[in-house]
Amino acid sequence: MYNFRTDLALERRDLYKKAHNIETDVDGIETEEEKIDDSLMVNRVKVTNEKGEQAIGKPIGSYITIDIKKLKVATEEDIQKASEIVTKELKILIEKHVNTKDSILVVGLGNIYVTPDALGPKVINEIDITRHLLEYMPEVLDENTREVSAISPGVLGTTGIETLEILKGIVDNIKPKLVIVIDALASRSIERISSSIQLADTGIVPGAGVGNARKELTQNTLGVPVIAMGIPTVVEAATIAADSLTLLIQKVQEQAQSNDFLNKLQEEDKYTLIKEILTPEEYNFIVTPKEIDSLIEKMKDVVARGINFAIN
Amino acid sequence: MYNFRTDLALERRDLYKKAHNIETDVDGIETEEEKIDDSLMVNRVKVTNEKGEQAIGKPIGSYITIDIKKLKVATEEDIQKASEIVTKELKILIEKHVNTKDSILVVGLGNIYVTPDALGPKVINEIDITRHLLEYMPEVLDENTREVSAISPGVLGTTGIETLEILKGIVDNIKPKLVIVIDALASRSIERISSSIQLADTGIVPGAGVGNARKELTQNTLGVPVIAMGIPTVVEAATIAADSLTLLIQKVQEQAQSNDFLNKLQEEDKYTLIKEILTPEEYNFIVTPKEIDSLIEKMKDVVARGINFAIN
Amino acid sequence: MYNFRTDLALERRDLYKKAHNIETDVDGIETEEEKIDDSLMVNRVKVTNEKGEQAIGKPIGSYITIDIKKLKVATEEDIQKASEIVTKELKILIEKHVNTKDSILVVGLGNIYVTPDALGPKVINEIDITRHLLEYMPEVLDENTREVSAISPGVLGTTGIETLEILKGIVDNIKPKLVIVIDALASRSIERISSSIQLADTGIVPGAGVGNARKELTQNTLGVPVIAMGIPTVVEAATIAADSLTLLIQKVQEQAQSNDFLNKLQEEDKYTLIKEILTPEEYNFIVTPKEIDSLIEKMKDVVARGINFAIN
Amino acid sequence: MYNFRTDLALERRDLYKKAHNIETDVDGIETEEEKIDDSLMVNRVKVTNEKGEQAIGKPIGSYITIDIKKLKVATEEDIQKASEIVTKELKILIEKHVNTKDSILVVGLGNIYVTPDALGPKVINEIDITRHLLEYMPEVLDENTREVSAISPGVLGTTGIETLEILKGIVDNIKPKLVIVIDALASRSIERISSSIQLADTGIVPGAGVGNARKELTQNTLGVPVIAMGIPTVVEAATIAADSLTLLIQKVQEQAQSNDFLNKLQEEDKYTLIKEILTPEEYNFIVTPKEIDSLIEKMKDVVARGINFAIN
Repeated sequence: MYNFRTDLALERRDLYKKAHNIETDVDGIETEEEKIDDSLMVNRVKVTNEKGEQAIGKPIGSYITIDIKKLKVATEEDIQKASEIVTKELKILIEKHVNTKDSILVVGLGNIYVTPDALGPKVINEIDITRHLLEYMPEVLDENTREVSAISPGVLGTTGIETLEILKGIVDNIKPKLVIVIDALASRSIERISSSIQLADTGIVPGAGVGNARKELTQNTLGVPVIAMGIPTVVEAATIAADSLTLLIQKVQEQAQSNDFLNKLQEEDKYTLIKEILTPEEYNFIVTPKEIDSLIEKMKDVVARGINFAIN
Repeated sequence: MYNFRTDLALERRDLYKKAHNIETDVDGIETEEEKIDDSLMVNRVKVTNEKGEQAIGKPIGSYITIDIKKLKVATEEDIQKASEIVTKELKILIEKHVNTKDSILVVGLGNIYVTPDALGPKVINEIDITRHLLEYMPEVLDENTREVSAISPGVLGTTGIETLEILKGIVDNIKPKLVIVIDALASRSIERISSSIQLADTGIVPGAGVGNARKELTQNTLGVPVIAMGIPTVVEAATIAADSLTLLIQKVQEQAQSNDFLNKLQEEDKYTLIKEILTPEEYNFIVTPKEIDSLIEKMKDVVARGINFAIN
Repeated sequence: MYNFRTDLALERRDLYKKAHNIETDVDGIETEEEKIDDSLMVNRVKVTNEKGEQAIGKPIGSYITIDIKKLKVATEEDIQKASEIVTKELKILIEKHVNTKDSILVVGLGNIYVTPDALGPKVINEIDITRHLLEYMPEVLDENTREVSAISPGVLGTTGIETLEILKGIVDNIKPKLVIVIDALASRSIERISSSIQLADTGIVPGAGVGNARKELTQNTLGVPVIAMGIPTVVEAATIAADSLTLLIQKVQEQAQSNDFLNKLQEEDKYTLIKEILTPEEYNFIVTPKEIDSLIEKMKDVVARGINFAIN
Repeated sequence: MYNFRTDLALERRDLYKKAHNIETDVDGIETEEEKIDDSLMVNRVKVTNEKGEQAIGKPIGSYITIDIKKLKVATEEDIQKASEIVTKELKILIEKHVNTKDSILVVGLGNIYVTPDALGPKVINEIDITRHLLEYMPEVLDENTREVSAISPGVLGTTGIETLEILKGIVDNIKPKLVIVIDALASRSIERISSSIQLADTGIVPGAGVGNARKELTQNTLGVPVIAMGIPTVVEAATIAADSLTLLIQKVQEQAQSNDFLNKLQEEDKYTLIKEILTPEEYNFIVTPKEIDSLIEKMKDVVARGINFAIN
């Protein structure tokens, strides 16, 4: 399968269309765009059949991308408005799978000690949980209160335990009816870093063949529906460089200055070439805005409020 | 049972002796003191029978307290020396229960977002884990490598899930042979804040009758031996105030200025009285050194290194 | 002078009245109370002459205290409302001293690495500054933009330099017309911790005789008017304990169980006695809510927004 | 002048030699390399005359680069060893300019709230200062104690005040005999991120023509010698991409697949081209290892210890 180097269905569809020179819709993929205002945009990608699955490497299901422009300079009001869109879209997904009072477990993936990966744990700290109150002091709660719990399981690199191994035991023990997973994603586009949120009711399915043994978190493995909220926080350095090459080659082609060798150089070859150059022994290099710390703080507010109003 | 307001066996024994005017040893309790140097001291309290258990409200087992003086101004070398004592004492406890290659799960209790409660999660971030390497790339490891994993499950107040509910599933899934739990404790003495470490092979058993529903983490509940490493990081504000009252009354008694009322005022009455005064509706007031942030950082180094050298 | 152990004019007035059994107003001190709603209250204390100064040890000037109840559970809306009161009261003070376009320097005292002392530096990070834009790209700003700059000078203990020595040079260099100083205060009451804000146009004048060599930050020393925003974030541990003694003695007196000795024990004697007990060699013990980290975050939002809307 | 896009004299010399196809030494530039062990290397570049200045755009003076390999996996011992090299080299530079007891001000540039820019402020928090003790309690200090103070002035973007404007006032007030400035640099090479330290006794002189109005911090502007300690913590994203292009072109040339157009494409053209592609409106994109948070912590230990032992 093609290595999209992005977890966003929207970007994958665009890459697929470009790679195959498709102008119209792709079979098995329906898309829809809604502009809320100058800084908010909602894109819906529906994978409706196996052809769509194969085209973009994402399972059948709904993928909603909410784009928030200029989060860096967002006011409190902008954050509130963005969170309301998250609430609205998330609520629709939740209601497709469970009832108003059905219990929900919110899971924040990622590593609190690595800035671009800390979003999940930070959101968990802001979730309005009720499960312990329902158990120990139900009298303080409204009788319609939904049971909400939350956990931030850490990452394989610091726990030595697969996320699935941790979550499986918890889900079996506390039996939520739905799981919401927050995860930091890789994107293809630096404009999307900490300014897009992808909602999907298909869980998290690491791309086949990427050589990443991370086990999927889906209804298959956890036994209950899994809504994934993915937020791009990094772009691989090699992706940026490979994209730059593509642009250079375009330019030389436009100027009729290209040659056979360049014309035949494929997307994947460039990436592989660059990847070698950019991978010194031990590090995992990423491209990120210098302001990533404060962007993560703002995105945390958008996501946490979006969830809290959708589930409580 | 008497409310000791300390989780340290050593302090409990002292309080018990004082309350009962006992000068000699208590039946069922053996103690031993070892001075390493001017700033390091090891105390061992052994609860040997049920009488001992009842006296100090701690189950039969070994309780080792390592005291580190002047951690605030400790140099890198002092920290190293303290961690070596932790390694030595911890190793003895571990070897009582498991073999050299038996797998270990390290658990850091507490809340990363609350400074005096963040020690456990911070230590977890420094543990040298091997479990994922043994699974995915065993060739990079020595063949005698012990399987080590680590987790920081969060606290009931932010997860809504009992720590035991989280750990039970994980222990059942990954089957460690021993669990080491790091926990922030309450102490009676402000000198002990972030400068003592209590090791015990009895797990964590919240005191009966303290009105705290926290479930115990012991061999009983987890199915494998549990070594607890407790580090005092706070003193309750009411404890400090009640202790001050006791001292005042002593003083007036010494000066023959006391009276029947004061003489009869019991330890617990004072505490209850003070507790009411000091407990405004919503907060949990604690006494802590202003420098608690940097003390926790130093203690984290002592504990993490102490564990890493004991288990690897 | 009496050691009030609080920097709040409001608390000092109350302590003065209580110590002197005064029921009515004190000469030289005018007070006024305004209840905004269930969780917001504004108190104004005006020291109008030297008698007032001597009574409560605060220079002639206006002291406004804004109390915010239940900040711990405050919603975004509550924070917004509190910040609006700060804006309103601060604006009145500013307009007493400078014109709409006069330049302002905002100073955040405190130590970013010590949680209860980190409020000042954290607020500075949120101030909307304009001075560099006015200098380098004035075209992006409205022509009525006020020149705003901000600095967080650190504390004597980590810089080795008196705050006044740092600020004097900066004020001489950049010549603001007004300085606003944010500072963490000590309070007498644990309810006030991170839930009160005191505004005063008299600058910061450390109490005479407290043995603290910190130099004052006032119009006298800086050459321009200084508005101080003080937020109580700690109570001294000895204060809590001494207050508990007072309450105990009251109780024994009520029950006619007291005696001459206790009746004569003065406020200061108790404090001195307790202070000795509670002061182990090296630490500075404080009483603080366990939730101080998140309280400081919320208070930071109230103060930063309050200032930003008052000055821009 | 050529845009080197690196602040390291060592990298500039290499780029200059490459651009001009120079194999031997450059006039006005002397270099020397010392391998300490497998993971530590010291490079000395001396700019001896104006020709050297013009060649690499750095003023006459000594530039020492200490390279620390594998800092990511460095043990406590490795960190200690690296800090000893820093101490040794720094001491030589200091002794060239001042006597043993002459006062020193340490300045940590950067923004504590932006991870790759937080090194300076973090180091300042660890400097052993003596100035306040010499003033208020000289009796606790050895009579040969040097006066050390430290400050972290913030960045123009959050203070609105030029660093020079802040430091000038402080230096005039407290009159140190030498200033040491710690600064995060840009580098050309991702291997150097948080693993090199450049020492120079020429202060900080922002490159002419880079369009950055930051004023220089040198003996000229501050009136006392300025030693700069620069640590690369980021690489510009455009630099990485432009370097990748260069490599691609090399490859096609090697394979005799290039053409006139590519052969003539200059270094700067590529950079300019890429810069446009990679600069969306508002952000400052950087390339950094995902592990930058923990790298900064380790580098902080190396630098702070290195300084503390050199000056005390």
